[in-house]
Amino acid sequence: MNIIELTERLNTDAIGDDMYRLICDLYSFCRSLTGNGIRQTLRTVGQYIPLSTYEIPTDKQVLDWTIPNEWNIKVAYIKNSKGQTVLDFGNSNLHVVSYSVPVKTRMRLAELKQHLFTLPEHPDWIPFRTSYYKKNWGFCLSHNQLMELADDDYEICIDSSLEPGFLTYGECLLRGETPDEVLLSCHTCHPSLCNDNLSGIALVTFLAKHLSLVSLRYSYRFLFIPSTIGSVCWLSLNEDRLCNIRHGLVVAGVGDPGKLTYKKTRRGDTEIDKAVSHALKYSGEDYEILDFYPYGYDERQFCSPGFNLPVGCFMRTPHGRYPEYHTSADNLEFVRPAYLADSLLQCLSAISILENNKAYMNQNPKGEPQLGKRGLYRGYPNGGVEDLALLWVLNLSDGDHTLLDIAERAGIAFAAVKKAADALLACDLLREIPNEHGSQGSLECERVFG
Amino acid sequence: MNIIELTERLNTDAIGDDMYRLICDLYSFCRSLTGNGIRQTLRTVGQYIPLSTYEIPTDKQVLDWTIPNEWNIKVAYIKNSKGQTVLDFGNSNLHVVSYSVPVKTRMRLAELKQHLFTLPEHPDWIPFRTSYYKKNWGFCLSHNQLMELADDDYEICIDSSLEPGFLTYGECLLRGETPDEVLLSCHTCHPSLCNDNLSGIALVTFLAKHLSLVSLRYSYRFLFIPSTIGSVCWLSLNEDRLCNIRHGLVVAGVGDPGKLTYKKTRRGDTEIDKAVSHALKYSGEDYEILDFYPYGYDERQFCSPGFNLPVGCFMRTPHGRYPEYHTSADNLEFVRPAYLADSLLQCLSAISILENNKAYMNQNPKGEPQLGKRGLYRGYPNGGVEDLALLWVLNLSDGDHTLLDIAERAGIAFAAVKKAADALLACDLLREIPNEHGSQGSLECERVFG
Amino acid sequence: MNIIELTERLNTDAIGDDMYRLICDLYSFCRSLTGNGIRQTLRTVGQYIPLSTYEIPTDKQVLDWTIPNEWNIKVAYIKNSKGQTVLDFGNSNLHVVSYSVPVKTRMRLAELKQHLFTLPEHPDWIPFRTSYYKKNWGFCLSHNQLMELADDDYEICIDSSLEPGFLTYGECLLRGETPDEVLLSCHTCHPSLCNDNLSGIALVTFLAKHLSLVSLRYSYRFLFIPSTIGSVCWLSLNEDRLCNIRHGLVVAGVGDPGKLTYKKTRRGDTEIDKAVSHALKYSGEDYEILDFYPYGYDERQFCSPGFNLPVGCFMRTPHGRYPEYHTSADNLEFVRPAYLADSLLQCLSAISILENNKAYMNQNPKGEPQLGKRGLYRGYPNGGVEDLALLWVLNLSDGDHTLLDIAERAGIAFAAVKKAADALLACDLLREIPNEHGSQGSLECERVFG
Repeated sequence: MNIIELTERLNTDAIGDDMYRLICDLYSFCRSLTGNGIRQTLRTVGQYIPLSTYEIPTDKQVLDWTIPNEWNIKVAYIKNSKGQTVLDFGNSNLHVVSYSVPVKTRMRLAELKQHLFTLPEHPDWIPFRTSYYKKNWGFCLSHNQLMELADDDYEICIDSSLEPGFLTYGECLLRGETPDEVLLSCHTCHPSLCNDNLSGIALVTFLAKHLSLVSLRYSYRFLFIPSTIGSVCWLSLNEDRLCNIRHGLVVAGVGDPGKLTYKKTRRGDTEIDKAVSHALKYSGEDYEILDFYPYGYDERQFCSPGFNLPVGCFMRTPHGRYPEYHTSADNLEFVRPAYLADSLLQCLSAISILENNKAYMNQNPKGEPQLGKRGLYRGYPNGGVEDLALLWVLNLSDGDHTLLDIAERAGIAFAAVKKAADALLACDLLREIPNEHGSQGSLECERVFG
Repeated sequence: MNIIELTERLNTDAIGDDMYRLICDLYSFCRSLTGNGIRQTLRTVGQYIPLSTYEIPTDKQVLDWTIPNEWNIKVAYIKNSKGQTVLDFGNSNLHVVSYSVPVKTRMRLAELKQHLFTLPEHPDWIPFRTSYYKKNWGFCLSHNQLMELADDDYEICIDSSLEPGFLTYGECLLRGETPDEVLLSCHTCHPSLCNDNLSGIALVTFLAKHLSLVSLRYSYRFLFIPSTIGSVCWLSLNEDRLCNIRHGLVVAGVGDPGKLTYKKTRRGDTEIDKAVSHALKYSGEDYEILDFYPYGYDERQFCSPGFNLPVGCFMRTPHGRYPEYHTSADNLEFVRPAYLADSLLQCLSAISILENNKAYMNQNPKGEPQLGKRGLYRGYPNGGVEDLALLWVLNLSDGDHTLLDIAERAGIAFAAVKKAADALLACDLLREIPNEHGSQGSLECERVFG
Repeated sequence: MNIIELTERLNTDAIGDDMYRLICDLYSFCRSLTGNGIRQTLRTVGQYIPLSTYEIPTDKQVLDWTIPNEWNIKVAYIKNSKGQTVLDFGNSNLHVVSYSVPVKTRMRLAELKQHLFTLPEHPDWIPFRTSYYKKNWGFCLSHNQLMELADDDYEICIDSSLEPGFLTYGECLLRGETPDEVLLSCHTCHPSLCNDNLSGIALVTFLAKHLSLVSLRYSYRFLFIPSTIGSVCWLSLNEDRLCNIRHGLVVAGVGDPGKLTYKKTRRGDTEIDKAVSHALKYSGEDYEILDFYPYGYDERQFCSPGFNLPVGCFMRTPHGRYPEYHTSADNLEFVRPAYLADSLLQCLSAISILENNKAYMNQNPKGEPQLGKRGLYRGYPNGGVEDLALLWVLNLSDGDHTLLDIAERAGIAFAAVKKAADALLACDLLREIPNEHGSQGSLECERVFG
């Protein structure tokens, strides 16, 4: 089965439900940069796809960074002077600031307030807070909860550990015809937040699952890594492999109701930029294309100037642009199966373009070949877009244009152009230009790392 | 006389009438890809300009095509069971599908209908249909005529011949100072259709007639060829001459009331593209510039990737965008002398730019020369566009800009810029840069055919 | 003190008043292309800045021009037959056409009218007229004055001299760290006209005065020259120095209420074009950027193709676009201290960009450096534009981008980007790329003059 056939056979409803179910299964794990929550997550993902798990020791230097101690947490609460629990980590793993140091003490409300975080503008929601690289502790709670706290003497307990251990990440490789790779990366470090980024984990998992069923031109590498330190760590450990990366996407925030958004690579004009843009243009949906900017998700690291990899970011509503972002309202109601499935399909559509985007040479470049005698041409007024696609492919298959270039120039969907090229190939009017991508690849390799 | 003087002296009304009269003379001939209708047409054109007629044997291989048998037709009709003629080819040479094989038989209406073509949405009009490369026969008639046909037994006669013979085309060459050529091509294969393309034949004929009166920088080659197979044939026979073609236009559909339309060459940024665009911009009329697309008229062949000639297409309303297209309504009322004359004038205006578009070197490039002492400058506030044109020509005559480049950059009509350049030449403030176009020409020649 | 500190300390109100006072002091001098009015003007300017005055002999050939005779005038009037003075040069030095030859005669009104110039559409205003290169004489007066002149016999006196002497101009050089120069030029040849160009003289004077207080990277050359012949003369005498000019501005018409206007250099994409455009974009004011055109002020000469210097023109309302232009209404009420000060500040803002626009190399280009451990990063949601500026500078400091390129790409004001770069430099995350501008300079030098 090839990727075009796969795409035609997909049952969108079923896939949306499958993705959503995986999110439900992962929702309660207490993920952070490191620790058992990530291990639980990767074990669950590993039930869907063949996943290798890596454990990198803490304190290891990775590029400019040092892997921080591993964080785990068992219990945390605040009790009032009557011994009543007024806040219980068991109710939401957002209640404790991620990477909080252990604490066991008593204090008055006034002092405790230095360690309490709320969202006054959304009094029912719990904010998500971290303190990965600065030793601290704290609780997050709804503003309504805070308002109910009396001026009392409180017992504080955070039974966490911050100790030498490991940074854990997962990786899955599907080998295709060529060693040229497509990288798909999602961050796994957020606790009970569904859009950011259980949705990304679900999309990458199901993308790997489905791509494993088809014959592929490219090899595909899927990364499940904690944000920033995870991509820094992976880049540090895999520098010698980066020259194989032809295209890549960071996937994050793909289950919300917002329109699809693609943030371009730092280079801005790579094939992945063109493929995703084309797929979205012909998706029939509203969408947005953003230029690269050096903040956001792990594309910050992949697109740092010393690597400058062709990695864009595939999202629905971008980070920070929806009020639920980094709050307890980014929950199981906020992401919907239909949006998850749509995101997966559009991502597959872009990948299908990558897989099929080759360059051909017109074997009859002088004048048009007589298509009629080959049964390929219907002529005015019946020929329609099929005729046009044939003529465009012939006219632009001059060594300077890939099928995607032709589709863009012609204003015709890639699939129709690909179909025309197949018909012309079948009657020897086209010949594939060999090794185009291989050679382009190694040149880039030299340019970036030489 | 030079071309600028020619343009100033032209009597637009008279030219429009002359062009229209030629169309009237040609209207009744039964043209097709081949045959006597084309010969009659070329004989008539030959009364205006010195035309060489070429007869290329059928069955000859030209590029990917084979010249089809020659088609001629004497009589065709449909008679009802009472022997009454219900359709007579003598009334309109659109009534028979072009290239219909001979037929002499009887059949019931139901069977006959397989061979009848009408336009239900325009019940008074007869469609134009062809079957050049697939053996078939048929009649075209108005939908009203069809509605009147009773369920009867009909006598069918098409007394045509489809036999070895010749493809006939005409060519006229005006030699200029240089061997660099401007190609002007029109298709001659359509029967009684005025806009498509008796209007093009008339424009090219009168362009040749008028250009023959002036001294020319370029040589001009005028082609009167059947569509597609004609240009394929001509290209096949003249490959070694193509490197002389500097600029070219396919002329078609230039007598209708629509606005002027220019479709760019495949390269999209050639001098002919710029010259026609500039002429239209300063025409004072509404107009449209289209990017190249690989269907339409014979520019499809001239701009195939193996030739990639700088040939655009000069039209009024493009093919297929007006309801009269390829119907009996594209008749002597549809084209008007005023539109024909306007099309010719704008075409001449673009050619006048080509003829005069040279590059000069400012002989006093450091600071402005003192124009006042040479009587060239009137200064603020009286100088107006004449002063500005002088300053623009001086400022941009640095070896990188032709007069057309300067006109475009300055936002001043080419004619005013040319006048300024002439004034500056006269006082030795400019010198022509020699051989600019010659050398460019041979480079292109290598690039395309090497 | 550096230029950023200077800009922060400037007292806008005081500067506007200072500039306006200089204009008041210069208003009454009878300036022309040559003569004592210019000498008085330069003496006054010399009280503010160290100014060298040059006296170039008349009749000297400078490029294509010849320095005309020096013109001075003592007295001029028109008296009626009763001996009453009806027009007195003492009332306005606009009353006499500049460069009028001496005349002492009598004539009837009808004959005299050949030499009288008015503005019927502004009957209260006196026009400004010159006849520098054509021997002539004339009076300018309000249309109302003309209407009151009876049909009488008039005594005409213009006691002027047009004799061998000198063309006078002023020059001030501030030496910076490098020999690379920024040129600032204003024209000094207009008599009692405030916006055109006492405002320019005031701006250039106070720019020199303030820049002399700070340490500078570039050397700054300030020219006070008569229009056209002055720049032609200066260019002719300084050809061997032009290769040092990195950036330049002609300053004219900077005291009127109109919006700031920048006219680009002939090259159109030089650093001065980018710096002024950026400064204006972030000025918070309405402004306009114009493409180069080869008329206007002395940028015509600096940007002639043989020099092609990177010199733009800094204005408020461009010449000829306000009714007061070249009339007595361009007076002390027309220019206002606030507009003068604003023009100076925006000009300084652009110069501050030039002074600080360097390129740096990210010393940790693989992945982001960990800014938090260096105390540089506050993170979402507190970091704001400071965080973004740090990330942009790191991401684009790859050898291909100056700070101004980064500011433009990031959509962040230059000052914030500069501040981020300073912070990154301080912790060795950036290193300055040496000699960037020096080498660029000498290359240009060769290109233009080789």
